[in-house]
Amino acid sequence: MTDDTEYMQMALKQAELAAQAGEVPVGAVLVLENGQVFSSNNAPISRHDASAHAEMRVIRAACAATQNYRLVGSSLYVTLEPCTMCAGCIIHARIGRLVYAASDPKTGAVKSLYQLLSDKRLNHQPQVTASIMADESSRLLKQFFKHCR
Amino acid sequence: MTDDTEYMQMALKQAELAAQAGEVPVGAVLVLENGQVFSSNNAPISRHDASAHAEMRVIRAACAATQNYRLVGSSLYVTLEPCTMCAGCIIHARIGRLVYAASDPKTGAVKSLYQLLSDKRLNHQPQVTASIMADESSRLLKQFFKHCR
Repeated sequence: MTDDTEYMQMALKQAELAAQAGEVPVGAVLVLENGQVFSSNNAPISRHDASAHAEMRVIRAACAATQNYRLVGSSLYVTLEPCTMCAGCIIHARIGRLVYAASDPKTGAVKSLYQLLSDKRLNHQPQVTASIMADESSRLLKQFFKHCR
Repeated sequence: MTDDTEYMQMALKQAELAAQAGEVPVGAVLVLENGQVFSSNNAPISRHDASAHAEMRVIRAACAATQNYRLVGSSLYVTLEPCTMCAGCIIHARIGRLVYAASDPKTGAVKSLYQLLSDKRLNHQPQVTASIMADESSRLLKQFFKHCR
């Protein structure tokens, strides 16, 4: 098992926790340059916070722990393609690499609707790896939305 | 003085507080449908939080106070055109109306680089009013960056 699938597996566990709490199942893991690992799940409804996507929560947790608003050299694993809000925060935090699982044709801002992370007009372009364990993530999301209906 | 200039004046006061703390001078005011008012300033460095733009902080404060991840019918006043992160959060929070002062040709995501808030593919389009007290806001920003150099 590569590091990428290992960390994405952790992110998928977080996505499952989100689903159990009635939130859209998305999970994120952030690995700092020194190897320290943080994980969070999507929780806007339960946390009463429009910004509480998994990516935002894990970035905020890592910033707080390191007392630094930039996470240079870190890698972020997410089970779903980030939206414009999260892609923007990834740039602000200077995250080195983004790895995500499923694409999001409705709100994805990395490849689907917008390509924010490769926009040279913005002041940081992280490396991006897509489609790591995409099927597992899609299955979770489909199950969740089937139950909602 | 109209409500718009009155609230923008409050937002400019917040921008001044940001500058005094060594942060890029941006301020935000959020007015709920019931008239309740929140205000915040830009504080990523001092708060150790890449996401701590004025807009994000005021949205999170209002969400926490109302115990609701959506702020339907609210109006957001910001002294600078929001970036992709903040524009995305404005959509997630279902903010009814955005009023901003200065344009941001480098990272603005409402009119300058992107037009996220009028993108019909995304699931909410707030009303937007631009250029309210833009000169006052630009002056603060120019002063700040002049001191930085």
